[in-house]
Amino acid sequence: MNTSSEIASAEIVPATADDELQQFAVHARTSIDAALDRILPGEPVAPAKVHAAIRWSVFAGGKRFRPMLLLAVGEAFGATQETLMRTACALEMIHTYSLIHDDLPSMDNDDLRRGRATCHIQFGEATAILAGDALQTLAFQTVAEDESLAPAKRVRLISEIAKASGTPAGMVAGQAYDLEAESRDVSPGELEQIHRLKTGALIIAAARCGAIIADGSESELVAVTNYAAQLGLLFQITDDLLDVTATVEALGKTPGKDSRSKKATYPALYGMEVTHNHLLLAHDAACSSLDALPQSTELLRAIADFILKRQA
Amino acid sequence: MNTSSEIASAEIVPATADDELQQFAVHARTSIDAALDRILPGEPVAPAKVHAAIRWSVFAGGKRFRPMLLLAVGEAFGATQETLMRTACALEMIHTYSLIHDDLPSMDNDDLRRGRATCHIQFGEATAILAGDALQTLAFQTVAEDESLAPAKRVRLISEIAKASGTPAGMVAGQAYDLEAESRDVSPGELEQIHRLKTGALIIAAARCGAIIADGSESELVAVTNYAAQLGLLFQITDDLLDVTATVEALGKTPGKDSRSKKATYPALYGMEVTHNHLLLAHDAACSSLDALPQSTELLRAIADFILKRQA
Repeated sequence: MNTSSEIASAEIVPATADDELQQFAVHARTSIDAALDRILPGEPVAPAKVHAAIRWSVFAGGKRFRPMLLLAVGEAFGATQETLMRTACALEMIHTYSLIHDDLPSMDNDDLRRGRATCHIQFGEATAILAGDALQTLAFQTVAEDESLAPAKRVRLISEIAKASGTPAGMVAGQAYDLEAESRDVSPGELEQIHRLKTGALIIAAARCGAIIADGSESELVAVTNYAAQLGLLFQITDDLLDVTATVEALGKTPGKDSRSKKATYPALYGMEVTHNHLLLAHDAACSSLDALPQSTELLRAIADFILKRQA
Repeated sequence: MNTSSEIASAEIVPATADDELQQFAVHARTSIDAALDRILPGEPVAPAKVHAAIRWSVFAGGKRFRPMLLLAVGEAFGATQETLMRTACALEMIHTYSLIHDDLPSMDNDDLRRGRATCHIQFGEATAILAGDALQTLAFQTVAEDESLAPAKRVRLISEIAKASGTPAGMVAGQAYDLEAESRDVSPGELEQIHRLKTGALIIAAARCGAIIADGSESELVAVTNYAAQLGLLFQITDDLLDVTATVEALGKTPGKDSRSKKATYPALYGMEVTHNHLLLAHDAACSSLDALPQSTELLRAIADFILKRQA
């Protein structure tokens, strides 16, 4: 992880919100990757193939968006990184398990993710299913065994993550709706429900878990939830737009795949212009939600700006 | 659930250990099924297909062996059924999720379980994967949100269940070893490791969770662990024997399938006579482990007797 030069270059230019985000992101990614490396079973540990498959997918160059958001919110609320890190890793494990299972032939049937072979292409379907299963288990175990947090907080975090990743109000429900919608036209309301559950719920959980670890109040949790809901929407719309506009090199997966398989996307439903308007509205709403917070929220605003402008 | 006549008939004959077990099993099954019905998302709740798939597999006539064992140990140690039930249901959810995923075409490729279509045959592969994923999530959520238990106990239970169901020391690891062993001959040591992880770990967790909820001491936990380890072995050997001897009607799945696909089994490795000796040794060892306990253990001994003699 060759990050020291990036950190150094971030430090010599005058600090702006963008610089602050850049510096935070580089530090956070290094810490998150190191923590994941400590928590996940080592590849030499038997059964080696399933552990190699887990590591193949976890260390596949993901953006670490969910754990970074958890750290950003938690630190804005005054929590230490030590108390935040294991829950942050748990969210990345849940996210990665869902990618492994979503890529399977009977689901989205993707051969390529982040520029390389998906888990089942590399290790076979059976091992990919097991790797996903084990990652989910390890996510909950990681929070349950986090001795930096009081047990009452751990069970609350597990409940938050479970609700956001299961059914009827989480990620699995979103994936179920998405599969069901593939064979027909969906309404704008259905599209929003799919995204809210499939990607939004876990992004909201990331932000909420950060605030919960930092002992945020109920009204602060509401503000954070609203912020993260808009961030999730922003993230999904930019994802859909990138799928239309990006090249395979920039995207690391086959672009245009979503529209070919009649997947519900914003550009397909609204066209490019209205989709761009949605994007700006979501960005504004994310930032407005932060106005209710007494904490310093520059970093959280910079995250919203960054997603608005992202190219990959 | 037409069980009142069974309960009545169990009550009018003189009590023996067998009768006690019969009565316990009927009561326990009714309570477990009712609790699962309360906890699982209702079939009319959207997304309906994945919820129907979950219920199809959970209410497929399973023996409820793991939750019953948890209740039996917990009650022997003086815990109330109310404090035991949600963790008992969580174990059944983990067990059911593993069956759904194990039956998938890329895993064991089974069309029939307990006399009817497996989840992916009935609902399609994608929905079966999601149903398994959601059941695992719900298992951990159920324990995390169990207000009859102190948070410190809940996180300990979640940790126990996670270790027993994940990798490198749990069910997923066992399944990974099993898949890897399918294409070659296995040694007796490997066979035992596969079974210990694939089925033994969760059976041990069931017994341990019962004792943990009841505040069992460390030495009592050791005795319970030894008992359950032998029970798991007993269960696996009888399973292998039934696969050789039973008819499709009695078994509810295709008999002889294990040996055809070169799956590691006790009869294949040791022959029938030595396998029967293993069976008796495991039964004796299970009962001896209970001698270390001051509690009344008739019911736990009756469970060992029952598995020794089981026909399905």
